[in-house]
Amino acid sequence: MANSSIRNPTSFDVARLAGVSRSAVSRVFTPGGTVSEETREKVTKAASELGYRVNSLARGLQQRHSGIVGLVASRLDTPLRSRQVRQLSEALIREGFKPMLITAEKPDDVSTLIESLLGYRVAGMILTSDSPTRALIEDCKRQGLPVVLVNRAGVSNWGDRVVADNETGGRLAAQLLIDSGAQRLGCLLPRRGTYSVSGRCDAFLATAERLGIAVKVIHAEDQSYADARAGIVDAGRDALGHVDGLFCATDLMAIGALDALRLDLGMSIPDEIQVLGFDDIEQASWASYNLSTIRQDIKHQSEIVVRLLIERIADGTLASRVEQQPLSPVLRGTTRHVG
Amino acid sequence: MANSSIRNPTSFDVARLAGVSRSAVSRVFTPGGTVSEETREKVTKAASELGYRVNSLARGLQQRHSGIVGLVASRLDTPLRSRQVRQLSEALIREGFKPMLITAEKPDDVSTLIESLLGYRVAGMILTSDSPTRALIEDCKRQGLPVVLVNRAGVSNWGDRVVADNETGGRLAAQLLIDSGAQRLGCLLPRRGTYSVSGRCDAFLATAERLGIAVKVIHAEDQSYADARAGIVDAGRDALGHVDGLFCATDLMAIGALDALRLDLGMSIPDEIQVLGFDDIEQASWASYNLSTIRQDIKHQSEIVVRLLIERIADGTLASRVEQQPLSPVLRGTTRHVG
Repeated sequence: MANSSIRNPTSFDVARLAGVSRSAVSRVFTPGGTVSEETREKVTKAASELGYRVNSLARGLQQRHSGIVGLVASRLDTPLRSRQVRQLSEALIREGFKPMLITAEKPDDVSTLIESLLGYRVAGMILTSDSPTRALIEDCKRQGLPVVLVNRAGVSNWGDRVVADNETGGRLAAQLLIDSGAQRLGCLLPRRGTYSVSGRCDAFLATAERLGIAVKVIHAEDQSYADARAGIVDAGRDALGHVDGLFCATDLMAIGALDALRLDLGMSIPDEIQVLGFDDIEQASWASYNLSTIRQDIKHQSEIVVRLLIERIADGTLASRVEQQPLSPVLRGTTRHVG
Repeated sequence: MANSSIRNPTSFDVARLAGVSRSAVSRVFTPGGTVSEETREKVTKAASELGYRVNSLARGLQQRHSGIVGLVASRLDTPLRSRQVRQLSEALIREGFKPMLITAEKPDDVSTLIESLLGYRVAGMILTSDSPTRALIEDCKRQGLPVVLVNRAGVSNWGDRVVADNETGGRLAAQLLIDSGAQRLGCLLPRRGTYSVSGRCDAFLATAERLGIAVKVIHAEDQSYADARAGIVDAGRDALGHVDGLFCATDLMAIGALDALRLDLGMSIPDEIQVLGFDDIEQASWASYNLSTIRQDIKHQSEIVVRLLIERIADGTLASRVEQQPLSPVLRGTTRHVG
């Protein structure tokens, strides 16, 4: 497997290993090309050993990469993700790269797509939260592809990552509700947690426990508005009546919770129950919600991501890096403000 | 100019026109390649005449295109556009294409980007509303690039277009408000209209005029939530007090208008004033808004767009086509329902 460490092996590498001319390699991979069965076999074997792909675009290409950066994202039409994709695309384009968008809802879809992307000699990949499987990241690692992971767990000290400081975020959320007078906390989170969501909720729960405050955990099926609303309605006034400060794992969930609390359960906010979100999506500032939240600066995040990627493309030997983007509280109308 | 009709001219075409060997052409375009000044001049002249680009990916490429489809969109983080980009990407990927995302807020940015994209031998382009200039579309036409335009005006009977039936949409909106008992109509629209927005508002105004109903036109600076809200607040209770049925050019604007009417002006909806949007973005169904609207089916739209593009790639000689996507009313809580 020593040979497979060549990044983007070329037809020259295949020719060298197969002990044939480069034009023989070229003929093997040209539809209708004339070549002896013996040569074809040698070339095919060498190509497979090296992981050589006939690049659909770059046959004969001398350059190291295409300028294309694969941008993997799911749930593209949710407010946070669409802002992320916009900011990342613009940052990539400013630096002369071309973002190729890979959207897929099922992890296996993504794997197949990325497999086919590798034929374009992409310059690198940006993987946003919760879409790509661990196996896929391992695949990028094996290919030696520059990768930056956004708000998700990495693999074995490889690649670069930009993460929100979820530890601090969760602690900040608990502290903020307590400082605003909440004494009986609740936490609304999806059953299927992602890296970011689980991280911040765990920190919220740990902080409350450390302070000796019980937390009522309420589950939603998933992270959508509708699931969050249904989760609160299902928990009902009985459960919510014992909560006076509710932390929601994302703003989108907090907005679903607000509609459920006010319109379905008839509760008054923030008098009966304070509500705090996370992200600061645009809708959090809409007047009907006026949601207090913990802000992630997505523009700043995108700039860090693209800088790390450029540095990684320039020097693949850099040690693995993790950068944290800062978080800040945004106090609006769904929490009580002391002082 | 006869020669410039060759689509995607190759180095062979350049060699033929320049009267030199193909390897001479290749040397001219290889950094550090050795070639006489005379040959360089012949090749450069022929290349320029043919519109030959040294393809950064596909030097020596035999295939006709790369499978890459350029997807041009601005305002990517608005709800309608992000849903469109998600649906278009998924439809393209299902058909084996790779969507390359081109986001830019200023028209000149887009032109430069697309110029550089042409070097990738893109299979085609999808241009969504309001971003690319007419000059850019003319450019695609000159390049013979398959293009589908979504919800925007075309140029001189060229290319394929998918448009919402704005004529019908605007008429439907006026009829719907009138049938729900509105007698004094209003129309909220942005100062800088796009193809879709202007089309549906014009049809709304024309229908009201035909029926002898006066319409109070209210302008917002732009199409954002904040601009729509400010537009209503600026018009004030005096102007709005004389309106009992308000059509807003988009759902996002309607949501800004609802917050202004209810929270800033203290009006009751639908009792004092009915409000109708257009698009059916996800937020229209959120319980705090529960907005009545005219629905565009974006998934269906995307499927039509990709089908037209595939047919156009397969046969560039097809006559220019325009397909309309259907619209349907969605009645929620901001209009009164008769019967």
